[in-house]
Amino acid sequence: MILDIIRKSILPAIDADLKHQIARLDETHTLPFKEMLTYHMGWTGEGAGPEAQGKRIRPLLLLLTAASCGIDWSTALPAASSVELIHNFSLVHDDIQDKSERRHGRMTIWKKWGIPLGINSGDALFVLSDQAMLELSSTFPSATVIKASSILHATCLDLTIGQYLDMSYEKREDLTIKDYWPMVSGKTASLLAACTTIGSLLGNADETTQEAYHSFGHYLGLAFQVQDDFLGIWGEPALTGKSSVSDLLTGKKSLPILFGLEQNGEFARKYSRGPVHPEEIPGLAEQLTKDGAKLFTQETADKMIDLAMQLLQIAQPQGEAGQALYGLAFQLVGRQA
Amino acid sequence: MILDIIRKSILPAIDADLKHQIARLDETHTLPFKEMLTYHMGWTGEGAGPEAQGKRIRPLLLLLTAASCGIDWSTALPAASSVELIHNFSLVHDDIQDKSERRHGRMTIWKKWGIPLGINSGDALFVLSDQAMLELSSTFPSATVIKASSILHATCLDLTIGQYLDMSYEKREDLTIKDYWPMVSGKTASLLAACTTIGSLLGNADETTQEAYHSFGHYLGLAFQVQDDFLGIWGEPALTGKSSVSDLLTGKKSLPILFGLEQNGEFARKYSRGPVHPEEIPGLAEQLTKDGAKLFTQETADKMIDLAMQLLQIAQPQGEAGQALYGLAFQLVGRQA
Repeated sequence: MILDIIRKSILPAIDADLKHQIARLDETHTLPFKEMLTYHMGWTGEGAGPEAQGKRIRPLLLLLTAASCGIDWSTALPAASSVELIHNFSLVHDDIQDKSERRHGRMTIWKKWGIPLGINSGDALFVLSDQAMLELSSTFPSATVIKASSILHATCLDLTIGQYLDMSYEKREDLTIKDYWPMVSGKTASLLAACTTIGSLLGNADETTQEAYHSFGHYLGLAFQVQDDFLGIWGEPALTGKSSVSDLLTGKKSLPILFGLEQNGEFARKYSRGPVHPEEIPGLAEQLTKDGAKLFTQETADKMIDLAMQLLQIAQPQGEAGQALYGLAFQLVGRQA
Repeated sequence: MILDIIRKSILPAIDADLKHQIARLDETHTLPFKEMLTYHMGWTGEGAGPEAQGKRIRPLLLLLTAASCGIDWSTALPAASSVELIHNFSLVHDDIQDKSERRHGRMTIWKKWGIPLGINSGDALFVLSDQAMLELSSTFPSATVIKASSILHATCLDLTIGQYLDMSYEKREDLTIKDYWPMVSGKTASLLAACTTIGSLLGNADETTQEAYHSFGHYLGLAFQVQDDFLGIWGEPALTGKSSVSDLLTGKKSLPILFGLEQNGEFARKYSRGPVHPEEIPGLAEQLTKDGAKLFTQETADKMIDLAMQLLQIAQPQGEAGQALYGLAFQLVGRQA
């Protein structure tokens, strides 16, 4: 029933509201500019369609949280658009920073239009996110809107901090696992925590419940990132060495790699010799497993998922939306509910 | 007297508040990130000092407007920081987009730390601007804070639109003067109008007065840009051809160039032949003068200045701050008050 509502009502409503937000660029002289954003969102251009669009996890998380607190999810739509737009702002700038040429199987915005226009498109998504959040004013008290905006801004600052740490870590050799958490808190967990916090704020939850929802989002984000790091080494495409997705190739300081380096064993010795060649990847991944990184990463992910689920229980999400929230959380970390 | 207050009280207070805003990055692990922003602001690093800092025109305009409406300027400081931070966000991203290697005689942020960290630093300035504006909450009613934030966001969208038009114009040959105004409204006038509008909003001015202040800022911005375009052709460094500052070299669609192209005379013929060499600049500038572009540009600037000053009279700025506002306006467009 709720899955039906998500598919038939909530997801289309999110898309409609996102389109309404981006329609701020609907003037004749800004239409080619708007086109860059609608291309990125997967609505227009070559390869447009469901495959080219994100899963809209963040707006869904926000709306289901609001509904789990007992309000009509549709009143929170501007906030849902806001978090999805800020997520997409960060994707557009990340792709430039990482020189990623493809996303969802299509050329990235900077690859298609160049870096200057790519930067500018990311900036526009950022502004549209700000503007979307303030649209809550038509339904919510001003003080609530300011609180929601403050949470969004704090998260944006976290995103830039996480991004700074990620980039500055690439060249550093002195890092340990304790350097990992501030980076992924900023890059991944902060925005998921913002979704659940804003959702519960708009849902009129009391402070304690908002806090539980906040922590739920935070640990869900960490679990998601640790899982992602696991797949970045032992996931099928990463392991084969046939694609460029292995974190062993990019110099990324993911959790298993930091664990392996900290062990100072066989993996650390081999990995610090310099650039990794694709044919070395299966051997390096096996060495990481032998040094205990695979078990450690999986156990860490499990701990984070357990914590997230305990916190969700404390938040006591109500009704069918509450059940859907459990389902979405499990789906996000790649488990059966 | 007021000039003394500006120099001894207002400008130092703006700098102190800006430092307080950027102190959001005061965690140990974010200090090198903060350093990029304080370098850009002219406070730290090689060449730091008054010469490396901007003139803080925008925050001054906002605070003097607020004071001219009768309130204590210091209560509006967070808004003043906000407009200065958003201005600096746009400078940081513009410098990447234009490949500008120097600003105030020092290396630009991207030249010093690379494009990825440069983009990220601009993003951080954007967020800090948003956060600064919401700090008004401690003194102003929530509805006023939301209004001020909405004005800021609308201006940010204008900045991205102006930037988009500027970049997309570089390759176009079919442009006329009517394409010029939306570009400079977005790139320059919108932020100056935001300063005067937010200043008068915080100063509790009535709607009609806010509207007059808004239009004053808008035309002041247009006058400033047209003057700047004038100097980009006939200013001393531009004319000599010794520096790269002539708009004739960069392909920029400034007002005199668009006028010259529209005349379809000698200048248009020579200019559309292709890349301009530095030694051709004095001749091309002379041809532009002959085709009437110099007179047209100066007359246009004069018209905009007159309009701005008429609108300021309608706004009826009060007291010494009001007089200072006239002075600042004349200073901005390079005239004696």
